[in-house]
Amino acid sequence: MTYTKVKYEELKKMCDLVFEKFGFHLEDSETITDVLLLSDLFGIESHGIQRLVKYYTEIKSGLINVKSEPKIVKETPVSVTLDGQAGMGQLIAKKAMNMAIEKAKTSGIGMVTVRNSNHYGIAGYYARMAEQKGLMGISMTNSPAVIVPTFGKEAMLGTNPIAIAMPAEPYPFLMDMATSVVTRGKVEVYNKRQEPLPKGWALNANGEDTTDPKDILYNVPRHLGGGIVPLGGSGELTGGHKGYGFALVVEMFTAILSGGLTGNYVHLDGKDGSGTCHYFCAVDYGMFGDKKSIENSFSKYLDELRNSKKAKGAVKIYTHGQKEVEAYNDKMKNGIPMNDSTLKEIYDICKYFDIDPKKYISKIE
Amino acid sequence: MTYTKVKYEELKKMCDLVFEKFGFHLEDSETITDVLLLSDLFGIESHGIQRLVKYYTEIKSGLINVKSEPKIVKETPVSVTLDGQAGMGQLIAKKAMNMAIEKAKTSGIGMVTVRNSNHYGIAGYYARMAEQKGLMGISMTNSPAVIVPTFGKEAMLGTNPIAIAMPAEPYPFLMDMATSVVTRGKVEVYNKRQEPLPKGWALNANGEDTTDPKDILYNVPRHLGGGIVPLGGSGELTGGHKGYGFALVVEMFTAILSGGLTGNYVHLDGKDGSGTCHYFCAVDYGMFGDKKSIENSFSKYLDELRNSKKAKGAVKIYTHGQKEVEAYNDKMKNGIPMNDSTLKEIYDICKYFDIDPKKYISKIE
Repeated sequence: MTYTKVKYEELKKMCDLVFEKFGFHLEDSETITDVLLLSDLFGIESHGIQRLVKYYTEIKSGLINVKSEPKIVKETPVSVTLDGQAGMGQLIAKKAMNMAIEKAKTSGIGMVTVRNSNHYGIAGYYARMAEQKGLMGISMTNSPAVIVPTFGKEAMLGTNPIAIAMPAEPYPFLMDMATSVVTRGKVEVYNKRQEPLPKGWALNANGEDTTDPKDILYNVPRHLGGGIVPLGGSGELTGGHKGYGFALVVEMFTAILSGGLTGNYVHLDGKDGSGTCHYFCAVDYGMFGDKKSIENSFSKYLDELRNSKKAKGAVKIYTHGQKEVEAYNDKMKNGIPMNDSTLKEIYDICKYFDIDPKKYISKIE
Repeated sequence: MTYTKVKYEELKKMCDLVFEKFGFHLEDSETITDVLLLSDLFGIESHGIQRLVKYYTEIKSGLINVKSEPKIVKETPVSVTLDGQAGMGQLIAKKAMNMAIEKAKTSGIGMVTVRNSNHYGIAGYYARMAEQKGLMGISMTNSPAVIVPTFGKEAMLGTNPIAIAMPAEPYPFLMDMATSVVTRGKVEVYNKRQEPLPKGWALNANGEDTTDPKDILYNVPRHLGGGIVPLGGSGELTGGHKGYGFALVVEMFTAILSGGLTGNYVHLDGKDGSGTCHYFCAVDYGMFGDKKSIENSFSKYLDELRNSKKAKGAVKIYTHGQKEVEAYNDKMKNGIPMNDSTLKEIYDICKYFDIDPKKYISKIE
């Protein structure tokens, strides 16, 4: 697979226009583009602009309803329950996190749980929204089942990412991670490269360890058994029950609190939404002490972690969010690498909508 | 090592008396005993009554101050920051979780962060306090550094457990887990048995994989390098950076928010407390929807997980908290297994305080 670097500003303008052609208002198009491109800028290609075609397919099939507005089901000074009404995940999620942020500003804490939404991109985007307002932010989502519970052989929980962000200098803390050992996207990468999976990632239809990516990509969508292992591995010896527990907690905050669908019912072939559920939380940590002192002591600790002694042969110790800042700065300066098949898909969509991609994209290299 | 089963009621009475002799009021003694014995009833021997001698040593050395009262540093309708004043961890933690519960009852959510406390027993005890009041409960604590950050060789974070509890039938959800692959206690068990550790648990002084428990138990307290691997393993291939992230988040909620000491400064040899920090949260999930509906859908999902298809050769799929309920019922009926060295230590303490242990303990077998 070859990659071509494309300028951020050019990609942004073109994507904004494409999403308008999908039927979204300009402001909403800009939000969706912003979520997708942040993923590319962070180096997470699987959740970036390469999903544009997928979203279009989901809009055409009726899975995503372009015109619907999220509805407030219940509200208190510290909480909201939202029904996403099968709208676009990014728009629902941004609205929900903004509600959490407003509650946190007045009440100290805001928690928003969302049912009946769709894929919302990277969880980290929304946690970072709070961080950029000087708050702690948390974001979680469930997704179609792919994690197998410990001692099971049936996918029962989504990859269920948890993202947590908190201001710090020079690198804001931003952890954004699936509660599975790896994401489905990583399995797809090995499949495309025709390489076996590393040991300890996946289970076959009998619930036994496998290194064949097809056991996941073919079997799981057909409910033939098997799936991705929870963080910690299969069995309990290296803590697989812990990853299973974290994935379950994400189902609890997203699906159970909102009255929505758990991962084993979230689907990608429906006509009125996938039933995906999210959770957002913002905390004004100033309620615990002096904000500046808290930020300073956090920055100091993160610095101590980065500067602690390295393992033999290791080059660098990272804190969460540091790689993303480094990738962001590099890609803003040098362009976003787009793989050729993604670029072709985008060009095809542009042509379909009578947009001349060459008017927007001047290849950097 | 041989085990003798002892009746719960007898152990309880004797321990209440011993803690009174340590200098605590009867009510406080009962709280400490309750936390320790719940651990034994759950089958977690490492955090149970076998720590009685350790607590006594820490009281005599001045690490734990029997007479101090936790002090409120800051308070809002949804939050409290507490200074534990180097008191007994269990007493501070129970008080803190009760504050979180009261806030949740009036405001929907209560968050309490605590600095300058000591070892508080099992994290699950406090999360369960909220669950037993019909709330969601969260409890975390840091501890002396033993987890090595990904690509490092220096212990920089405690084993940092996270406990989350939520009402459900027939088994309430109760997840209580270190963010390391295993606890320090498990390493001690392998050392006592003179068995090598399973691969993927620990790092030696160079930051390389090791199976020698001494690399942890000798090297880490002396700051010679090495430690326990975060959940997910060493390196990033099986998600070690995720476990490192969860351990870091525990430091953030406990030490950073409270203005206390992070794991790399928490110590066990001080004269004015270890500096251990905790975090407690209670959520009245009724603010998101009908409480009974939420509980029912959660119970249904947990049931679906337990009844999902089993891996080849597997007997049972558990949900978190189920093993604890089964252990609790068994031990309440059949007695708590006490290993002989623990029983001897307790008898020695009794004699020191002129208590005749035989007046309390009638061995069951």
